[in-house]
Amino acid sequence: MTDEIVVIEGDGIGREVVPAAVDVLESVGPDFEFVAAEAGDATKDATGEALPDETYDLVADADATLFGAAGETAADVILPLREAVDSFVNVRPAKAFPGVDALRPETDVVFLRENTEGVYAGHEDRLSGDLSTLTRVVTSSASRELAEYACDFVEDGRGPAGDPDEGFTIAHKANVMRETDGRFRDAVAAVADERGVDADEELMDAFATKLPLDPGQYGVIVCPNLAGDVLSDLAAGLVGGLGLLPSANVGHDNGLFEPVHGTAPDIAGEGVANPTAAVLSAAMLLEHLGHVEEGRLVRDAVEGVLSDGPRTGDLGGSATTDEVTAAIVDRL
Amino acid sequence: MTDEIVVIEGDGIGREVVPAAVDVLESVGPDFEFVAAEAGDATKDATGEALPDETYDLVADADATLFGAAGETAADVILPLREAVDSFVNVRPAKAFPGVDALRPETDVVFLRENTEGVYAGHEDRLSGDLSTLTRVVTSSASRELAEYACDFVEDGRGPAGDPDEGFTIAHKANVMRETDGRFRDAVAAVADERGVDADEELMDAFATKLPLDPGQYGVIVCPNLAGDVLSDLAAGLVGGLGLLPSANVGHDNGLFEPVHGTAPDIAGEGVANPTAAVLSAAMLLEHLGHVEEGRLVRDAVEGVLSDGPRTGDLGGSATTDEVTAAIVDRL
Ligand SMILES: CC(C)[C@H](C(=O)O)[C@@H](O)C(=O)O
Ligand SMILES: CC(C)[C@H](C(=O)O)[C@@H](O)C(=O)O
Repeated sequence: MTDEIVVIEGDGIGREVVPAAVDVLESVGPDFEFVAAEAGDATKDATGEALPDETYDLVADADATLFGAAGETAADVILPLREAVDSFVNVRPAKAFPGVDALRPETDVVFLRENTEGVYAGHEDRLSGDLSTLTRVVTSSASRELAEYACDFVEDGRGPAGDPDEGFTIAHKANVMRETDGRFRDAVAAVADERGVDADEELMDAFATKLPLDPGQYGVIVCPNLAGDVLSDLAAGLVGGLGLLPSANVGHDNGLFEPVHGTAPDIAGEGVANPTAAVLSAAMLLEHLGHVEEGRLVRDAVEGVLSDGPRTGDLGGSATTDEVTAAIVDRL
Repeated sequence: MTDEIVVIEGDGIGREVVPAAVDVLESVGPDFEFVAAEAGDATKDATGEALPDETYDLVADADATLFGAAGETAADVILPLREAVDSFVNVRPAKAFPGVDALRPETDVVFLRENTEGVYAGHEDRLSGDLSTLTRVVTSSASRELAEYACDFVEDGRGPAGDPDEGFTIAHKANVMRETDGRFRDAVAAVADERGVDADEELMDAFATKLPLDPGQYGVIVCPNLAGDVLSDLAAGLVGGLGLLPSANVGHDNGLFEPVHGTAPDIAGEGVANPTAAVLSAAMLLEHLGHVEEGRLVRDAVEGVLSDGPRTGDLGGSATTDEVTAAIVDRL
């Protein structure tokens, strides 16, 4: 059966890098049915809604979605879409590629971010003119599900070390959020223990100091939702920025794949955006749908181009999006 | 009237660096009355309480407290002590010193961290066997008070640029925590506007990417409690670690001054801990009590020793705590 892939370009450079990623998907082989859908600032201007119901339903019913970026409306689009694909983990690799200027070239980490709760569960109340609250939610069940995924991930050799014996690090703030992050930490550690996977832990603030000082000591990092957001973006700063980083919102029978970068309004429309993050997101989509070999091919092609192919302006080159995409396709 | 300073060494290297800081305070002049008090892991072992009531009361009634570090019990000690001094802002400078190996030597920032609410307000509930919540609290009044402090700070030329016209950056996550961080951001921005102080804003995740990429673009950063915890620790990683960083928990008529580092159990008891962070915390204490000139003298002495004096092991030297302290005192 042909997999159905919803394609949402969104705003800004999303409209340039997503078509590039689709080109790569079409070149690499599996027979996909692509369905275009709209979301983002421009959609809101045109229809009054950043995320039309029609898009939500298409995404919920698809096999996977490739998403670009949204501007001001990012949270209105991304958070419901993560829910639409029933995503329980956000997979965020941050790796410094050979030949790319990075503050910490030895960085090679993967964040497994809880993708449904924490402060993102979003129960906020205005209790008085002066005071508002947000109810942060942590369940053992969501924490355990994330932990099972993390154990599979490590056991399948999908961590940076590629070693089924590499464990993971739990990053949390359980010394302050004792009940909630305590629950998270204990649930994740219990699963690791049951599965015989090594898990150490780190307070998220200490982790933020230690990652820039010595990224080589970390591999797979498992964290609550907001911690994963901030710490993975920190890792992005160590590998040279958001321009190269893909992400996967993994659900049970569905997934949403998106570059970590935004709409880059300063260069949008000029055809010079770096398609790498979107193409690597497409590689994660391939792997998610079982096309592991094709995913690897795309990854290798991207790395080849990064090390000695044409480069876009963010990497000090002057190539266009199309030229870089063509170079990637050439290597497939 | 002689100011009363409570001195809590705490655990680990706290017992070495706090006496060093007291030596410096005694050498630099103002007539202080020092009162020793106990808190931390060892106190808990001895008395059953990490923070005895007697210590809490001494701190609450003093003019200022100099604190070292606590081990496992850090949160049980530090969080109530911040309350004891009625602290509404945690001032955390992160500066790369000349001659000290730093990932980003151009880093020179000061975090002004809200010190009473956010997730630290600490309302947690175990709602079921599976689910726990934490109620994050944000008030306009606490946000405004922080903002007034930030405006004074900038107007007094106490920011890194030393320029009364330098504004500040508000770091928050109001795209997700719309009501709570939205309230924080709006309240801080409104005060800045009333006071004619420039304030721009940054999402805390984007800030975590951009700080390592280009720290030079930031000066004073105003943030909610947990954001300030994590982002200031990130800055510590860019200037070479926690070993050099002081902090001030500023209250209305009181203050608690502490190095950002912990107990360093690996080197505790050997007399080789770097006293810099504790001594710089003492400089912040001096300034807080109006001894601005003495504070500056201590700072200059520390910088002089860092650039061409004896160094402890963390900075690649082999000097003892006492040798470094003597070198600082010599320069006063
Ligand atoms: C746009 C925003 C809601 C989102 C998040 O905070 O999760 C983004 O920062 C991300 O990490 O994908
Ligand atoms: C010990 C801990 C409670 C504390 C905090 O989170 O505030 C520490 O990390 C700090 O930043 O001073």
